[in-house]
Amino acid sequence: MLIHQDRLFPAEPSARKIARTLYEQVRSLPIVSPHGHTQAAWFARNEPFPDPAKLFVQPDHYIYRMLYSQGVSFEELELGQPELKDARRVWHIFARHYYLFRGTPTRLWLDFAFQELFGLNDRLSERTADLYFDTISEKLRTPEFLPRALYERFNLEVLATTDSPLDSLADHRAIWESNWKARILPTFRPDPVVDPEFAGFADNIAKLGEKTGEDTSTWAGYLNALRKTRDRFRELGCTATDHGHPSARTANLSAAESAELFHRVLAGNTDAQQHELFRAQMLTEMARMSLEDGLVMQIHPGSARNHNRELYERYGRDVGADIPMPTNYVDALRPLLDQFGNERELTIILFTLDESTYSRELAPLAGHYPCLRLGPPWWFHDSPEGLMRFRERVTETAGFYNTVGFNDDTRAFLSIPARHDVARRVDCAFLAKLVAEHRLEEEEAVEVAHDLAYGLVKETYKL
Amino acid sequence: MLIHQDRLFPAEPSARKIARTLYEQVRSLPIVSPHGHTQAAWFARNEPFPDPAKLFVQPDHYIYRMLYSQGVSFEELELGQPELKDARRVWHIFARHYYLFRGTPTRLWLDFAFQELFGLNDRLSERTADLYFDTISEKLRTPEFLPRALYERFNLEVLATTDSPLDSLADHRAIWESNWKARILPTFRPDPVVDPEFAGFADNIAKLGEKTGEDTSTWAGYLNALRKTRDRFRELGCTATDHGHPSARTANLSAAESAELFHRVLAGNTDAQQHELFRAQMLTEMARMSLEDGLVMQIHPGSARNHNRELYERYGRDVGADIPMPTNYVDALRPLLDQFGNERELTIILFTLDESTYSRELAPLAGHYPCLRLGPPWWFHDSPEGLMRFRERVTETAGFYNTVGFNDDTRAFLSIPARHDVARRVDCAFLAKLVAEHRLEEEEAVEVAHDLAYGLVKETYKL
Amino acid sequence: MLIHQDRLFPAEPSARKIARTLYEQVRSLPIVSPHGHTQAAWFARNEPFPDPAKLFVQPDHYIYRMLYSQGVSFEELELGQPELKDARRVWHIFARHYYLFRGTPTRLWLDFAFQELFGLNDRLSERTADLYFDTISEKLRTPEFLPRALYERFNLEVLATTDSPLDSLADHRAIWESNWKARILPTFRPDPVVDPEFAGFADNIAKLGEKTGEDTSTWAGYLNALRKTRDRFRELGCTATDHGHPSARTANLSAAESAELFHRVLAGNTDAQQHELFRAQMLTEMARMSLEDGLVMQIHPGSARNHNRELYERYGRDVGADIPMPTNYVDALRPLLDQFGNERELTIILFTLDESTYSRELAPLAGHYPCLRLGPPWWFHDSPEGLMRFRERVTETAGFYNTVGFNDDTRAFLSIPARHDVARRVDCAFLAKLVAEHRLEEEEAVEVAHDLAYGLVKETYKL
Repeated sequence: MLIHQDRLFPAEPSARKIARTLYEQVRSLPIVSPHGHTQAAWFARNEPFPDPAKLFVQPDHYIYRMLYSQGVSFEELELGQPELKDARRVWHIFARHYYLFRGTPTRLWLDFAFQELFGLNDRLSERTADLYFDTISEKLRTPEFLPRALYERFNLEVLATTDSPLDSLADHRAIWESNWKARILPTFRPDPVVDPEFAGFADNIAKLGEKTGEDTSTWAGYLNALRKTRDRFRELGCTATDHGHPSARTANLSAAESAELFHRVLAGNTDAQQHELFRAQMLTEMARMSLEDGLVMQIHPGSARNHNRELYERYGRDVGADIPMPTNYVDALRPLLDQFGNERELTIILFTLDESTYSRELAPLAGHYPCLRLGPPWWFHDSPEGLMRFRERVTETAGFYNTVGFNDDTRAFLSIPARHDVARRVDCAFLAKLVAEHRLEEEEAVEVAHDLAYGLVKETYKL
Repeated sequence: MLIHQDRLFPAEPSARKIARTLYEQVRSLPIVSPHGHTQAAWFARNEPFPDPAKLFVQPDHYIYRMLYSQGVSFEELELGQPELKDARRVWHIFARHYYLFRGTPTRLWLDFAFQELFGLNDRLSERTADLYFDTISEKLRTPEFLPRALYERFNLEVLATTDSPLDSLADHRAIWESNWKARILPTFRPDPVVDPEFAGFADNIAKLGEKTGEDTSTWAGYLNALRKTRDRFRELGCTATDHGHPSARTANLSAAESAELFHRVLAGNTDAQQHELFRAQMLTEMARMSLEDGLVMQIHPGSARNHNRELYERYGRDVGADIPMPTNYVDALRPLLDQFGNERELTIILFTLDESTYSRELAPLAGHYPCLRLGPPWWFHDSPEGLMRFRERVTETAGFYNTVGFNDDTRAFLSIPARHDVARRVDCAFLAKLVAEHRLEEEEAVEVAHDLAYGLVKETYKL
Repeated sequence: MLIHQDRLFPAEPSARKIARTLYEQVRSLPIVSPHGHTQAAWFARNEPFPDPAKLFVQPDHYIYRMLYSQGVSFEELELGQPELKDARRVWHIFARHYYLFRGTPTRLWLDFAFQELFGLNDRLSERTADLYFDTISEKLRTPEFLPRALYERFNLEVLATTDSPLDSLADHRAIWESNWKARILPTFRPDPVVDPEFAGFADNIAKLGEKTGEDTSTWAGYLNALRKTRDRFRELGCTATDHGHPSARTANLSAAESAELFHRVLAGNTDAQQHELFRAQMLTEMARMSLEDGLVMQIHPGSARNHNRELYERYGRDVGADIPMPTNYVDALRPLLDQFGNERELTIILFTLDESTYSRELAPLAGHYPCLRLGPPWWFHDSPEGLMRFRERVTETAGFYNTVGFNDDTRAFLSIPARHDVARRVDCAFLAKLVAEHRLEEEEAVEVAHDLAYGLVKETYKL
């Protein structure tokens, strides 16, 4: 077997027993996935997923980052190609390098999918590569492996995507209007129209004007266009926004200052500092709108995007070369918190790629401000050790109830059950430690485990 | 029962057995509390503590921070009110939200006090709120619960308060001159007269002049006034100073430069940078005076005070809205260390709110400079996980003997035994791990446990 | 006995059993030591080591740092003296303070050497000081304790030293030309000729010119001289360079800009910023040369050297007063990576003294760029807890195969077996945890343990 029923539980027998008991209470709860990068089109069209290489290797930066770091080129993996010329060859390269993933969460996620979804029990390697390729290919052609069937099999209750304000949301609308009883929701991610360094920024703003019938060459028209677009998202069930800025910086400019900055930014007469200031002000504007329309606000700061210049020039964004940076929250968020920090009706969920901020800044901030909550470990830290560090460093100051449950944040649809399973197991392992060390009663731990797996995400994201 | 006899010990049976053995050697040692925020007036007057809400909820920022973060307003808690209108109602709000403290040290501290002091065995909740309120209220009216009786019951050997240079120390004097055999000592905390950003700074310096008969409008007179005040504290048993600066920055200006800066600062013609420089220079001046008069120097840097502007404007300082900041020591302390770093007769105890500095800066500094020692985990990090991280990250470079034992640092008098108990248990758990992994002999661990609980604090603080 | 056969293994029996099994597979593997500070002269001359104080106390900054931090002066230890006046007295001071090392890796390393090499079984203390001194002194006079005999006894396969470009490498040549079948290799460490703040920088460059017959007053001649010197090192088996800069900063200047900066730096008309820029550019130049000649590049950044001004003025460099600083990699390395980051034929090994960068910057960088690998924990972090933190924070993002095995990095020759033993044990303990928690199969763990102890270092350092 690839995966063991007690995986990720503490080795010590008394703690393991508690972890098992807790996990039994949460293992079958529906999955609520409030933040991720799957595509509504899959569910709107409900077409079979293509071959194993296209399904597993191509979209998953966790996989091709590791392969690339060990000398496998993007050409060999046929990355960036719409159609694979030789999917089996790509799969063999992956299989040959599968040992590289030992000790990584990717290995846990993949083995879960291989065993639970495809019934494979022998570890992936050069030797088993063809067996895997053939087995997976065959299953993908069956009705049980169509996107909608998998959504149901995964016991998903909600699945949120991440969408540009320029997206028509046609696929979401198609699902919404279909008879299929699923809850697939858009998330409003305005980076293309609030970040002056986003490719095509000025054009994007012009398009936003066209789509909304607002004059987005003015500050007031621009804000109105954003409001209208948020409303358009909300009509399709959207409950949250998301913001992927380089830093967590916020600003608190006057309306006149904001308008002037907007015009300079739009005209392109601005430098990096002014771009940063504009993004900062826009976080505050988004908070203001959230207070009006109730959308929960997610901030994902601290990634140096496109760090590998050569790959960016050849392959564009999101090719696995984003690197975390030191991130400050205590000064950065102050202007926004000065304005809205004490609003009980506002919810801002903070994420980080800089774990040194967990105990130093994030837990103290979320353990004080009524509007703040802490998102789960993100990206490089969405892993057994990372999830455990989060609980160990955050709980003592912010408690469990200023956190919001798990996000899978994935582009790899088939990894969703595995990721939630890992998170549930690690939370149960953490709680089992508290119980075994008599820091919490087992019956309380059961309640907390349930809240971490299901209750908090529903409540915080207003689902 | 609310608390278990093996709480905080490792779950693994062999390590737990060692932890128990070690703990048995230190559990009954007297408590030496060299740094905290209790009030001498309680012991001078020896009047009953008021009701449960006033005793537990009102003074404890750990409690009302958490409640506030989850939407409970200061109004509901009657914070900032000298008299509570409805103490029972406040207590019920607290009881209803007690589940929020699961996994926090506050829960450990409170349950210890509830069970050990008040004999309560059923967890606090809405259901048990009245039982708690009535039981505690009743006991507080008995002689066994008067401040002096509790001091003795807690097996306190020394209790230090924290005091302004402008304080008359009348309460300390009253205790000193009474027949009561307790050791309650003031600590010299000069922030009000060395921090230009402290409310009323210039007035404070004028008052310092009046109190000491020195002309504090001159640099020399100002320094003399500080010296005289330190002497006044020392006469009442004070052995330490304490400094709560935003950063750990020190300076090494000439006397002429210092005098000029002092005059500018006093006249109010200075900006944030010059305020910082003045505080920096004053740390060096305080070290110089410590070398003369033998007072141990404590530095508590790195808190962004009064981060919540609205609450600060309405409720003033110390209302739970202080947030840690990244803190540098390696550059910041250099000017002071250039002057006094190699003095064996000087003791400077460093604290931090930035755990990333434990292994990177603090342990290497304290593991080299003869004047430096490391204070225990502070504030947000004074918790089971925080205490463990401190030992894990500091010991390998600085050893045990460059640390100074535990500080409870509390405003909540009733939490003192619980806090020291948690620290002793976690230190024993850490030592038990070293013994179980054959990194230390058990007989050595017994000696170290004793030093961490009692020996080091007495020696380092010259008690 | 001073050391236990199960030391550093997890206390929990099932995990301990796995750790033992893994360790049995790697305990007897040859030691490959690709980076350290032993002296080729020892092996060239093969003379007996002097007395115990000179052997253990004098060269080991881990030891005298701790003693100094607790008030033992350099005078008492006779540091900096070529001959000890009273070695036995120095040894007694050390023995009396041996308890200070409880919980430190120094204690583990020393006890290993005392027991395994000298057959001592009673802990070092004032009481046993003479026994130790006499036993060690006696053994050091026997043939079994000559440097070459110890090299063989330690089962060393490769031992690399660290050498200045101005070093004649006469000792290396003598070993190379002797009949002795050992592999003692130089490492090219150009700090004296690439760091404008290194003592005698301009003179060093002039000497480099003399040694190589190049006109090092020109940029082209200077680069040629470096190339020739690298070739001279390579002829004696050198496979790596090493760079000990204050930061990891790199630059990507044009040839003309570089030449101009070089002339200004050489003339001494430069400030700290330009020194930093020159060092930054030189890292990029060294990478360029490594791509040409195949030398593996090691970068050891982030130490504030000579932090204790007084000791530096009296005793010079490397006296235990270097303190780690916060270190940035994500921005600092970008210019170099823009040039060479995607080269599969280049190997750059990154080290850090700032553990906050493990999961935030280093693992993501090494988990992406083909040229990057992560060096093992270094200096203050080369310890059981430090080694464990490294694996816990790095593996999930970078895997095992972007790390390079262990470096002892020591000046203390007798500590080499102990240090590698600690590293092997901690790696086995980490792997045992993964196996016990069903995150890895035991047969995979055996393979990984072997690679971490032996395979990766041979491959990465091209040995």
